[in-house]
Amino acid sequence: MAESVYKKIELTGTSTSSIEEAVQNALRRAAETIHNLRWFEVVETRGDIQDGNVGRWQVTIKVGFTLDEQAMDKPAN
Amino acid sequence: MAESVYKKIELTGTSTSSIEEAVQNALRRAAETIHNLRWFEVVETRGDIQDGNVGRWQVTIKVGFTLDEQAMDKPAN
Amino acid sequence: MAESVYKKIELTGTSTSSIEEAVQNALRRAAETIHNLRWFEVVETRGDIQDGNVGRWQVTIKVGFTLDEQAMDKPAN
Amino acid sequence: MAESVYKKIELTGTSTSSIEEAVQNALRRAAETIHNLRWFEVVETRGDIQDGNVGRWQVTIKVGFTLDEQAMDKPAN
Amino acid sequence: MAESVYKKIELTGTSTSSIEEAVQNALRRAAETIHNLRWFEVVETRGDIQDGNVGRWQVTIKVGFTLDEQAMDKPAN
Amino acid sequence: MAESVYKKIELTGTSTSSIEEAVQNALRRAAETIHNLRWFEVVETRGDIQDGNVGRWQVTIKVGFTLDEQAMDKPAN
Amino acid sequence: MAESVYKKIELTGTSTSSIEEAVQNALRRAAETIHNLRWFEVVETRGDIQDGNVGRWQVTIKVGFTLDEQAMDKPAN
Amino acid sequence: MAESVYKKIELTGTSTSSIEEAVQNALRRAAETIHNLRWFEVVETRGDIQDGNVGRWQVTIKVGFTLDEQAMDKPAN
Amino acid sequence: MAESVYKKIELTGTSTSSIEEAVQNALRRAAETIHNLRWFEVVETRGDIQDGNVGRWQVTIKVGFTLDEQAMDKPAN
Amino acid sequence: MAESVYKKIELTGTSTSSIEEAVQNALRRAAETIHNLRWFEVVETRGDIQDGNVGRWQVTIKVGFTLDEQAMDKPAN
Amino acid sequence: MAESVYKKIELTGTSTSSIEEAVQNALRRAAETIHNLRWFEVVETRGDIQDGNVGRWQVTIKVGFTLDEQAMDKPAN
Amino acid sequence: MAESVYKKIELTGTSTSSIEEAVQNALRRAAETIHNLRWFEVVETRGDIQDGNVGRWQVTIKVGFTLDEQAMDKPAN
Repeated sequence: MAESVYKKIELTGTSTSSIEEAVQNALRRAAETIHNLRWFEVVETRGDIQDGNVGRWQVTIKVGFTLDEQAMDKPAN
Repeated sequence: MAESVYKKIELTGTSTSSIEEAVQNALRRAAETIHNLRWFEVVETRGDIQDGNVGRWQVTIKVGFTLDEQAMDKPAN
Repeated sequence: MAESVYKKIELTGTSTSSIEEAVQNALRRAAETIHNLRWFEVVETRGDIQDGNVGRWQVTIKVGFTLDEQAMDKPAN
Repeated sequence: MAESVYKKIELTGTSTSSIEEAVQNALRRAAETIHNLRWFEVVETRGDIQDGNVGRWQVTIKVGFTLDEQAMDKPAN
Repeated sequence: MAESVYKKIELTGTSTSSIEEAVQNALRRAAETIHNLRWFEVVETRGDIQDGNVGRWQVTIKVGFTLDEQAMDKPAN
Repeated sequence: MAESVYKKIELTGTSTSSIEEAVQNALRRAAETIHNLRWFEVVETRGDIQDGNVGRWQVTIKVGFTLDEQAMDKPAN
Repeated sequence: MAESVYKKIELTGTSTSSIEEAVQNALRRAAETIHNLRWFEVVETRGDIQDGNVGRWQVTIKVGFTLDEQAMDKPAN
Repeated sequence: MAESVYKKIELTGTSTSSIEEAVQNALRRAAETIHNLRWFEVVETRGDIQDGNVGRWQVTIKVGFTLDEQAMDKPAN
Repeated sequence: MAESVYKKIELTGTSTSSIEEAVQNALRRAAETIHNLRWFEVVETRGDIQDGNVGRWQVTIKVGFTLDEQAMDKPAN
Repeated sequence: MAESVYKKIELTGTSTSSIEEAVQNALRRAAETIHNLRWFEVVETRGDIQDGNVGRWQVTIKVGFTLDEQAMDKPAN
Repeated sequence: MAESVYKKIELTGTSTSSIEEAVQNALRRAAETIHNLRWFEVVETRGDIQDGNVGRWQVTIKVGFTLDEQAMDKPAN
Repeated sequence: MAESVYKKIELTGTSTSSIEEAVQNALRRAAETIHNLRWFEVVETRGDIQDGNVGRWQVTIKVGFTLDEQAMDKPAN
């Protein structure tokens, strides 16, 4: 009962600078509406190419967060 | 800051006709409430069997869409 | 049209007792706000360690449920 | 005791027309001698090439069926 | 010549109680008609959901057994 | 010496109609300059989305072909 | 209709000498009762150890064969 | 500098009773000589078969622990 | 007909500085002779070690590019 | 700049004798036109069957080689 | 006999700054007690989250090193 | 209590002759200091290339052995 349940969602952050910043951008966006973000796992790293150079890094992560009382009380599918 | 963040959700569409229609059915359902659908990736293809024939194709896809301003302003877990 | 569409979400349930209870805890939490839960798939089993013993089992599952009329009519991303 | 046990076998169906028909051909062949076919999962899609065009689609599926009373009473290895 | 050959088949056992019992149910069923069962490997753990609780655990295993003299002398495909 | 060597290349074909046509389009393009195409393997199926519908199917395949005498006599890396 | 259907079974051959002989031993055993063996795929290579040396190579293969008329007319599950 | 480094080792615990106990047995053995055990991940579940029943559960886990000062000061390869 | 076909090649870029630069080095090399580079996917990250430090990052990517008219008119296998 | 870039291609070598010879045959063929071959990785081992025996071993490898100055100066797709 | 044998161990390095530094921290720690470190392979990238930002990067690598004479002369399990 | 615990380590054996000998070389090296070696699993087969021929086979295996009383009583990380 007191045992936590977590949810993991999958986000793709982008950045023209680095893999780290792409992850950070995804986290920052998630943190605007989700509290209790706990951990992330990188699942894919790719990017597009502009004129023979990396255009945008596109890093897909899974983000885990604690489900608290109010977290699923909307039909959140 | 102006760098997009995408979310990927996982849906299973079904169809009695074809794999393509099962994917299309999942997309159509998602498009009812989510704008900015961008791409999909097929992750599993299976089905049930009726009288020795394919009953329903069940195709699981990941669907990616752009997170815009209002997209996560509800506790949408 | 009458062909169902399902959504799969990823949850991590925890338990100090067993793998089965960790899964059950995740399902019970999901069932508070989501109707039509249909099936689950175990995708990862891990845990933390307390004094050389299993502390909490952490079992990640995908949970599939039917998307009905009202299920995605909120920007639930 | 009353809890079902299923067996899964692996078949490769072929078709000159489509992936769906290749699966259907495999199921039809299985249904000649196995009752209680329940579901299938696509595990590989490939094909041979004739004159630069797809010759035959070769789709490998796992097919699950219920093991009933008489189903394994022969040394069917 | 005296070197053994083994066959592996894939079964899905079910149980309303536990993962272990689902495996045991599959083994018991296999043992009715196959001798020389040697080992198993869990390849998938899933289940259906009834009223927000685990309905039946569905555990897929590969089961290995020794092929002895009479074991394949029927067209056992 | 008389034992064949094959090369496999990876192509992504696209189609607005179907998975099969996307594969066929990739093969047709390859056949313009490569003789001895032998087989293909589907490795990824995805697509983009236009107005909530499948825009283009993007199917990635590996294509195998026989390396004959003249096939690698240019620094074709 | 005239389009072939194949079945794949999984065997583990053993040998004290080499990987190749382990595969060959599995095939020879299968050929005693199954006609129309067509191809194999190595899926696992392992072995046991005797006195710090390889004892027996244990090589698991999938073996594909053509299902002809009589091949599945016994409850061969 | 103050940033921790962890090591992961791979153990197979066994039990005649349950998956959970097999994991617990592996942890207990590790805890005899390694301090700072932190987490584990289940990577394989298998077992041997005795008279058509599960003989011993064999559960392979990775175990992570903190490398402290003295932890690697022996040639512990 | 007007539907694009892409080719993906696999390159390993190296850098003594960072993962990002290793990718960039591979792209820059590819861009010398291939036009229409479109996207990349990181498939492996490794490196060698010099005196207990990272020597060179070795990052393997798949690079996708559009096949235009002249792109495959040489036996470029 | 002085940091090397490698390309990896995928070849399937065949041999009636052994896995090793199949790999060797693929390398020998590649070496006819590509200099600077550096390493290989076995990615698939399979074969066809003739009269219940291994017909030809078919071993797919990735071969890595250094891209030097002239190596990509032809539209080598 | 003169043919080298390598051992691979699995470490998780952490860093608040970057993926590269997390790897470097793991290597530096390993180098304190192990000589002959040769190469590493990144197998997992994840991290924890503090206030909606990346807290610590946690990068798991396999590290390969040469086993020389004295390297395994302790019960190094 | 009387239930065994095993440890698995990862080694890369090399040989200029064959895959089998590379495995054997790794086992022989391990047997110098570890008793109770029980089984191995091949996890990767690769090699370097000398003058267009296989230079050294590099075969990575996991080796399992029984942890007995004295086996982990040194800080063997």
